[in-house]
Amino acid sequence: MRVFGIDPGSECTGYGCVETDGRRHRLIICGGLKLPQGATFPERLRLIHEGLTALIGDSRPDLVAIENLFHSVNVRSALKLGHARGVALLAAVETGCTIVEYTPAEVKRAVVGYGRADKRQVQQMIKLLLGLTQPPTPYDASDALAVAICHVHSGVFKASLQTRLYDGATKSVEAGQTRLPKSWRQYRPPAPG
Amino acid sequence: MRVFGIDPGSECTGYGCVETDGRRHRLIICGGLKLPQGATFPERLRLIHEGLTALIGDSRPDLVAIENLFHSVNVRSALKLGHARGVALLAAVETGCTIVEYTPAEVKRAVVGYGRADKRQVQQMIKLLLGLTQPPTPYDASDALAVAICHVHSGVFKASLQTRLYDGATKSVEAGQTRLPKSWRQYRPPAPG
Repeated sequence: MRVFGIDPGSECTGYGCVETDGRRHRLIICGGLKLPQGATFPERLRLIHEGLTALIGDSRPDLVAIENLFHSVNVRSALKLGHARGVALLAAVETGCTIVEYTPAEVKRAVVGYGRADKRQVQQMIKLLLGLTQPPTPYDASDALAVAICHVHSGVFKASLQTRLYDGATKSVEAGQTRLPKSWRQYRPPAPG
Repeated sequence: MRVFGIDPGSECTGYGCVETDGRRHRLIICGGLKLPQGATFPERLRLIHEGLTALIGDSRPDLVAIENLFHSVNVRSALKLGHARGVALLAAVETGCTIVEYTPAEVKRAVVGYGRADKRQVQQMIKLLLGLTQPPTPYDASDALAVAICHVHSGVFKASLQTRLYDGATKSVEAGQTRLPKSWRQYRPPAPG
């Protein structure tokens, strides 16, 4: 099963996709949609929506997991973040995927075991869990992978896996080529030799 | 010149389009995208985006004016509103229109002459300014028309009109038929007999 995680942000939106059987996880793709400084705010929203639509389409996940927020530094930053999260949710719902939401504390508890873990701890745990040689960068990417893995560790995922076993259906996925501006940092694991 | 106004909201998103020569304004279309109670939040965002994309495409405005907010009751409602406003902005930027933003106080000052006017006062002024027999409903629709008219009353519009006169270009527009769910309240003025 493939889970696509999103950590929305108006400066940089993190994304990461993992394939998993519930125990072992394999990194498919991760990165950060770093938005050009000169771009207007509506243009940034367009880039987030366009980028995520392409990436979700390319990764063909069974499910999209997205970070949920109820708290923010202030109303102004909440409004700004809401815009980015709105177009990210739109990209997800347009692909027809199931969407699940987890709060930052749930994500950290599921991945690090501690709800107030910092970004570096999350990044190191993701490196371990996915058996990577380098920690995924930027932090937005590791945060997005953490959201995806949080879902895998959740009861919802286990229940869906059970259903899936009864279905007996497996999905063959070939990773396509996603066209994105060069400024968008992206990491693909090397093909197993 | 045609200006399309948007008053974003996660329960109901108001829209309204006016044609104007800077003095006399004519209503093209207005209404509220009232979202079904049973719909999930991502589904609502999809409906707002889809609805506004169709309506903007149909009205063929020269410019989209949208209400801007820096304040909100609390962080939670700011986040929610941010989502709706994000997909509204996305719909606007995807049509390639110029986008302008005005705060609620600017809109009220421009239309009623008083920055703290209530929704009923705005509605009555819109009825007067557009020479309508009935006030436009719901309030979201009159608020959206107010945003559009706020732009017409602004210096930016007058400057653009000056440029347009030199261009000597006029735009022929035929109103098409927009397909929207019946639950979406919409008002079209009767064709002049």
